[in-house]
Amino acid sequence: MKFKEKLKKIVNKNNSLLCVGLDIDKEKMPKFLFESSKNPYLDFNKSIIDATEDLVCAYKLNMAFYEVLGKDGFSFLEKTIDLIPKDIVIILDGKRNDIGNTAKKYAKSMFETFNADAATVNPYLGIDGVKPFLEYKDKCSFILCRTSNSSASEFQDLETDNITLYENVARKIKDWNSYDNCGAVVGATYPDELKKIRIILGEDIPILIPGVGAQGGDVESTVKFGTNNKGKMAIIVSSRSIIYSEKPRESAISLKEKINKFR
Amino acid sequence: MKFKEKLKKIVNKNNSLLCVGLDIDKEKMPKFLFESSKNPYLDFNKSIIDATEDLVCAYKLNMAFYEVLGKDGFSFLEKTIDLIPKDIVIILDGKRNDIGNTAKKYAKSMFETFNADAATVNPYLGIDGVKPFLEYKDKCSFILCRTSNSSASEFQDLETDNITLYENVARKIKDWNSYDNCGAVVGATYPDELKKIRIILGEDIPILIPGVGAQGGDVESTVKFGTNNKGKMAIIVSSRSIIYSEKPRESAISLKEKINKFR
Repeated sequence: MKFKEKLKKIVNKNNSLLCVGLDIDKEKMPKFLFESSKNPYLDFNKSIIDATEDLVCAYKLNMAFYEVLGKDGFSFLEKTIDLIPKDIVIILDGKRNDIGNTAKKYAKSMFETFNADAATVNPYLGIDGVKPFLEYKDKCSFILCRTSNSSASEFQDLETDNITLYENVARKIKDWNSYDNCGAVVGATYPDELKKIRIILGEDIPILIPGVGAQGGDVESTVKFGTNNKGKMAIIVSSRSIIYSEKPRESAISLKEKINKFR
Repeated sequence: MKFKEKLKKIVNKNNSLLCVGLDIDKEKMPKFLFESSKNPYLDFNKSIIDATEDLVCAYKLNMAFYEVLGKDGFSFLEKTIDLIPKDIVIILDGKRNDIGNTAKKYAKSMFETFNADAATVNPYLGIDGVKPFLEYKDKCSFILCRTSNSSASEFQDLETDNITLYENVARKIKDWNSYDNCGAVVGATYPDELKKIRIILGEDIPILIPGVGAQGGDVESTVKFGTNNKGKMAIIVSSRSIIYSEKPRESAISLKEKINKFR
């Protein structure tokens, strides 16, 4: 099944654009888990998945939180992916990038070794570094466009002939979409930029939007500017503010409903 | 010991600017290894290290080739690092990048979990994504500046007020160097750009230069433009053309001597 078909089905089934980020972090996880459980990371992820699987369209796993645990971390990553119901979209957020020969290995890693539905890719190297990901026609490659962090402007706002770098990247994403399998990453913390990017991308390219939770992005403008005319094609991510809240299910319900209110 | 001190010592000891890339790749490795050995990847890396450890200043491990093997790959990565003599520089080439909170995990992964001396970092997110790496003051963070691939120009050559993006990145690298622990990645395939970047960076910032082997970069211009006035502060990488040659030691000797001829 093609990525966008899978995405549409689960968005409709769960009536949700919400994506929960499974970013395991010992410093933020409940301390008792490390005393009582043999597999604290897996048990934690399982508890989040059990509490939210009817509320989300996707789970996003940021590779950094797994990689930092070394080989065990990648074992947790593989096992967590196995825990996710098959109809929910799995996004591996690794922001990988390299020259063609090597990007091929990263694409294989994301889409075959770990069997994700989608991956995030950094565009700094141009099409060479992106193309090996796009060769996986049934998967989706979300390319960093305008990131959610405060220094995003440092390079992404540099203008060439009155066009910023992030707008140039957005235009390329549209060009690169010949297999209908490109997406863009745009931070919820920059609503004006999100609006511009949605206009450049048109109606059919999905936008992965982190930054509404701990980073403080506004939900109303995120939905208004990030979705297409039908209130779709946006995946709105929250990680810390759901998984480390006292009541993850209630936090997820609340965010899901807030998103739907504005769709 | 600070990174640059370690680098200077080994450059002097082995009289070499050569860095060999340990990019394990089943498709290119000798087939008999997969029939005869229980640990073909480790045995392969060990044979390359044994054959070249007196000829190099550094080994570079590109994470993609390990990550694609899943959790086992990260185990090979850890074990390969253990095989490298302690006075040789270890560079983990992951081109990692993320928002601050997450970049911290990547920096910890590279410098603590895997205990590398240096890591490569993608600058697209600006200082937020770079700073957590720079907090490791005794390590070195090589920031992608002008990459070696053919589509490098796509974004890296975009000009703002007559300054290209890669020159802007080079200027930032110089600004970010307050702990004296920044480096730049510049492809040998672009000698003119390499020359400009060395001028921007000055004499004391190391440049990691891939692209002289299979990618076809010219050794003479790489040494001439990449090193400083003393013929130092450049690390010249070859991977495929050494490790997959019929005689890796001879190939490494030949490239090391060619580099030294022009220093």
